[in-house]
Amino acid sequence: MQRADREGVVLKAIEKVGKDLARQLSRGKPPALQVPARTLANIIWDSEAKILRLGSKKVKREFLDMGEARKFMQTVLMLSLIVKAIREGDYPTIRDLYYAGKHTIEYLNEYGKLQREETWDTQKESDSVIQDIEVITGLLREHMGILHDTKGKIVGRIVIRSGADTIDCSRMGDGAYSIPPNPDSLEILDVDAEYVLVIEKDAIFNRLNKERFWEKNRCLLVTGKGQPDRSTRRMVRRLWEERKLPVYVLTDADPYGFYIYSVYRSGSITLGYESERLATPKARFLGLTISDIYDYKIPRNFIIKAKDRDLKRAKELLNYPWFKESKEWMRQLELFLSKQEKVEIEALSGYGFKFLTERYIPEKLERKLWIE
Amino acid sequence: MQRADREGVVLKAIEKVGKDLARQLSRGKPPALQVPARTLANIIWDSEAKILRLGSKKVKREFLDMGEARKFMQTVLMLSLIVKAIREGDYPTIRDLYYAGKHTIEYLNEYGKLQREETWDTQKESDSVIQDIEVITGLLREHMGILHDTKGKIVGRIVIRSGADTIDCSRMGDGAYSIPPNPDSLEILDVDAEYVLVIEKDAIFNRLNKERFWEKNRCLLVTGKGQPDRSTRRMVRRLWEERKLPVYVLTDADPYGFYIYSVYRSGSITLGYESERLATPKARFLGLTISDIYDYKIPRNFIIKAKDRDLKRAKELLNYPWFKESKEWMRQLELFLSKQEKVEIEALSGYGFKFLTERYIPEKLERKLWIE
Repeated sequence: MQRADREGVVLKAIEKVGKDLARQLSRGKPPALQVPARTLANIIWDSEAKILRLGSKKVKREFLDMGEARKFMQTVLMLSLIVKAIREGDYPTIRDLYYAGKHTIEYLNEYGKLQREETWDTQKESDSVIQDIEVITGLLREHMGILHDTKGKIVGRIVIRSGADTIDCSRMGDGAYSIPPNPDSLEILDVDAEYVLVIEKDAIFNRLNKERFWEKNRCLLVTGKGQPDRSTRRMVRRLWEERKLPVYVLTDADPYGFYIYSVYRSGSITLGYESERLATPKARFLGLTISDIYDYKIPRNFIIKAKDRDLKRAKELLNYPWFKESKEWMRQLELFLSKQEKVEIEALSGYGFKFLTERYIPEKLERKLWIE
Repeated sequence: MQRADREGVVLKAIEKVGKDLARQLSRGKPPALQVPARTLANIIWDSEAKILRLGSKKVKREFLDMGEARKFMQTVLMLSLIVKAIREGDYPTIRDLYYAGKHTIEYLNEYGKLQREETWDTQKESDSVIQDIEVITGLLREHMGILHDTKGKIVGRIVIRSGADTIDCSRMGDGAYSIPPNPDSLEILDVDAEYVLVIEKDAIFNRLNKERFWEKNRCLLVTGKGQPDRSTRRMVRRLWEERKLPVYVLTDADPYGFYIYSVYRSGSITLGYESERLATPKARFLGLTISDIYDYKIPRNFIIKAKDRDLKRAKELLNYPWFKESKEWMRQLELFLSKQEKVEIEALSGYGFKFLTERYIPEKLERKLWIE
């Protein structure tokens, strides 16, 4: 969304929440907010669209309910902070919002004794209110101009407009374009690529960039440096959705790598509501798989014994609906749990530094050896 | 260094080590390497240049010494891997080099029994050998084309050449230029800025970028996202050294923030040899200081109680020579240890989202309230 949109559509959507409350008050009704429930029970796996969705369940948050007054007040406070930021052209971070809204309320209790209460005690509380506002308005916090840490980088033949600037991501030398906090503010002007290769590890991204892999293979390279942030996920989603580019994910052969793929593909279950906008349900896992360890005859002394946390994570993955629906994923996870072995992607360098780029990736793509 | 240099000067410097060994052998001498000692005792604080330097102590690593043969072999193995990578135009990561060199050596011991030994067991061993090669050749591993994770970003009026590309870091929209692994391969073509502002936190960098702080204040913005990587440190150093730009560092008011400043300024004591190239000895600490907490009347409920690890780190910092030489740093650290309180930079948002950029930073700069 462009800046104009932030001050138009977005501001209107947020102001509407306030106007609804004002209307209730002017009719002499006790004010209440309708908030889509973010509980696990209300997060539904849509196996057709292969995406997590928020169900239709809503909770009513009433001002005159002792148990909800605090949360009601927090939500209205946060709404007012966000509206003020948009009107004044500010771009606060989620932590800025925490501090901007944090103050002590003093009041006399029923015995006339002075009491003090904080608007919120921890950032967890204020972050949760921001999530409520996301589901109430149907907007991402990025649309509201709320900033956060970003980790993503992109290179390749893609030309982007951001504000007044036109950015050619094939002209970054040995560096890359650092994906901005709100990828929806970008206009994708031109793409000359056949697919997107998402790389778990930043150092491997740097190597492929240095080799100009994207140029030789007509692709875009993206990294989210491990567990991706929201901006990287949104950027990948847009490339898939708007430009119909297939997306391939390249990680270590271990449950943490598979989990990273899972985040790109479907998001996390506890934040299921984000997935409708951030997930890339057709993202393909290119490797490394557990069976690659044996198919590519990775030397024994390169293989790492699985740790308890790897086994624990693999068991969790077995229960993810999008893995459950895939025979090949079940096979990989069960192979991992029986062998209890993992390898890093750099283990392929035992066959030479170019093995990954000149043999492994092309072979996997050509023979369609990815997992969906 | 340009690519041509990597294949010229750099290759020559590394090959020279091999040639020296060959010469020793052809003269019938047992081969030995002279390696500058990277021990703490050989790392010297140069209080004039305000930089850590490696002293003149060298260790002789002899092939025919049972206690050193393994390390000797590892060093020669790594040298051969690096030379091969340069000759073949490869850009391995430090982890690639670990795997490329890792193999099992089989031999018969004095009783005729088959024995096995790994060239190296852990990446810590192979990384240590790379460090030895850095001090033997006087080159940084970046010069040799060895890649690693990068975290740094830069925006502002600086034009850079990397390979065939000319990159204008004032035309990045809401994004930024991601600093490449080897900043010495960049040519700085043009800078139109009065200073460099190094920001600890990525989210704050994004906010200042979104506000176009660099444009309004004629500066360059850099972040290393917390503890900076080598590339970010090298980039900042180059801007200070070659372009004579004053460098200001902005962090939270806590010992971790001060430590980050310390890394930009002087590097870490254990890797003192890097500092001659990576440190920016004249970097100034702009804030937040501990005394800012009281001078700016940060509300009590924004103040965070120091944790044990904060106190421990503050006590360590008291012993750093570059802090010891500064009365103001001693005062700040002692104030911290007596008050045992810290604040985050976002706490300033309690005074409005623009307080940091429109009041705090300009005030500190104008009244020269930084610490050196």
